[in-house]
Amino acid sequence: MTRRGLLIILSSPSGAGKSTLARRLRDWDADILFSVSATTRAARPGETDGQDYHFVDEAGFKRMVHERRMLEHAHVFGHFYGSPLRPVEEAIAKGCDVLFDIDWQGAQQIQKSTLSSNVLSIFLLPPSIAELRHRLETRGQDSAEVIDKRMNRSWDEISHWDGYDYVLVNDDLDATEEKLKTIVTAERLRATQQPGLVEHVRHLQSEFEAQ
Amino acid sequence: MTRRGLLIILSSPSGAGKSTLARRLRDWDADILFSVSATTRAARPGETDGQDYHFVDEAGFKRMVHERRMLEHAHVFGHFYGSPLRPVEEAIAKGCDVLFDIDWQGAQQIQKSTLSSNVLSIFLLPPSIAELRHRLETRGQDSAEVIDKRMNRSWDEISHWDGYDYVLVNDDLDATEEKLKTIVTAERLRATQQPGLVEHVRHLQSEFEAQ
Repeated sequence: MTRRGLLIILSSPSGAGKSTLARRLRDWDADILFSVSATTRAARPGETDGQDYHFVDEAGFKRMVHERRMLEHAHVFGHFYGSPLRPVEEAIAKGCDVLFDIDWQGAQQIQKSTLSSNVLSIFLLPPSIAELRHRLETRGQDSAEVIDKRMNRSWDEISHWDGYDYVLVNDDLDATEEKLKTIVTAERLRATQQPGLVEHVRHLQSEFEAQ
Repeated sequence: MTRRGLLIILSSPSGAGKSTLARRLRDWDADILFSVSATTRAARPGETDGQDYHFVDEAGFKRMVHERRMLEHAHVFGHFYGSPLRPVEEAIAKGCDVLFDIDWQGAQQIQKSTLSSNVLSIFLLPPSIAELRHRLETRGQDSAEVIDKRMNRSWDEISHWDGYDYVLVNDDLDATEEKLKTIVTAERLRATQQPGLVEHVRHLQSEFEAQ
C-alpha cells in the first residue's frame, strides 16, 4: 500500500532563501517533486517552459481556473500565477511529496482545498529586513525599482507568518536545511502517513489470536 | 519569553521498549522531565518513592482525583494509577517537556484535557507478538502467569494504536530512538512552540517601517 504524499508549502518573502532551500530539499530526496506553476508572465532569459514555469496565455489560464484545474492561483504584479491540480494529485497518489514555492495567498487556498489533510506548511523568516534587502541587492537579478517593490511586498508576506504549521528563522542556510529535513522526516512518521501500519496491526492480531 | 513545553505521551504494550526509549529521550535532553505516576500498588524491591512512583493509599488517591489534581487516572490489575497535574503544569510553564509513560486510557484523558493543545502522542508497536512475548520472558521480571496476563492486555493496548499522532514499529532500538528525537525536534519548530517569534516579527516590522 502506497502512502499518500504530502503537499509541502514553503513560503517566505523574496530573498529569504526559499528557492535555495527548496532545491536542497529536492536534492536530498528524489521523492520530493516540485510543483511547476503556470503563469501568464513572459519567460525570462534562461527559463525553460515546463520546468521553471508553464508559460500560458491569459485565456488559457482563466480556462484552467474556470474548469477547477488550479489548486490555487493569484494575481501578482499584473500577472497570473497558479498551481495546476492534476500533477499534484498524480504525484501524491504514487507516494511522492510535492513542494510548493508559493506565497501566503496560495498557501491559504491549498489549506482550504480538498487536499488540506495532507498539507505541511512552513514559513521562512529572514533574520532582519536589512539582510533581506542585502540579499536581493547582491543577487543582482532585479533593478532598484523592482527591489523596492519586492521589499514593500515582503512585509505583506511576513505579516502572514502565523498561518503556517512551522516557522524557521533562516539565519544559517545549512542549519535551516537540517530543520526542514527534520520536519519532513517527522511528518512522514505520522500514523496517517504510514498506510502499511494497518496491515502490520492486522498481522499482529492474527498472531495474537493464534497463540 | 519561555515556550510552553510539550506533553509527550509514549504508549505501547508491555515489552515494546517504551521504558528504555523514555530513558534514552530523557538522557538526550535534560529539558525532558518524566511524569512520575501516583499509584496505590505496593513498591517493588528497588523502587524509590517519588522517583519510580508516588506510592499513595487508596483514600489519598481518590481525594486527588476528586480534587481534580490528576491529569489522568486508570484502574489496572486492581490498582489505581494516575498522573498528578501540578508538576506537569509547573514543568511546561518553565519550558520543559514532560514525558508520560502511560496506556491508551490515560492518553485519551490527556488528549481531552485542558492541556490538549500541547500534547504530542506517540505509539510504539512491536515487530511481532512472538518478539513481544520473548522480551517479556527474557527480562525475567514476571512470572509465567503475569506474562500471560500482560500478553492479553497487550492486544487491548495495540488495538488503540490509531488514536496517536505518530506510530513507530520498534524493530531496532537505536533507529526508533532517532525517530523519537526527530519527532520531538520537529514539534519544537512549530510556530506555537516558539513564542520568541512574535518578538522577532515585531522587530522586523519596526525595521521595515524605519526604512
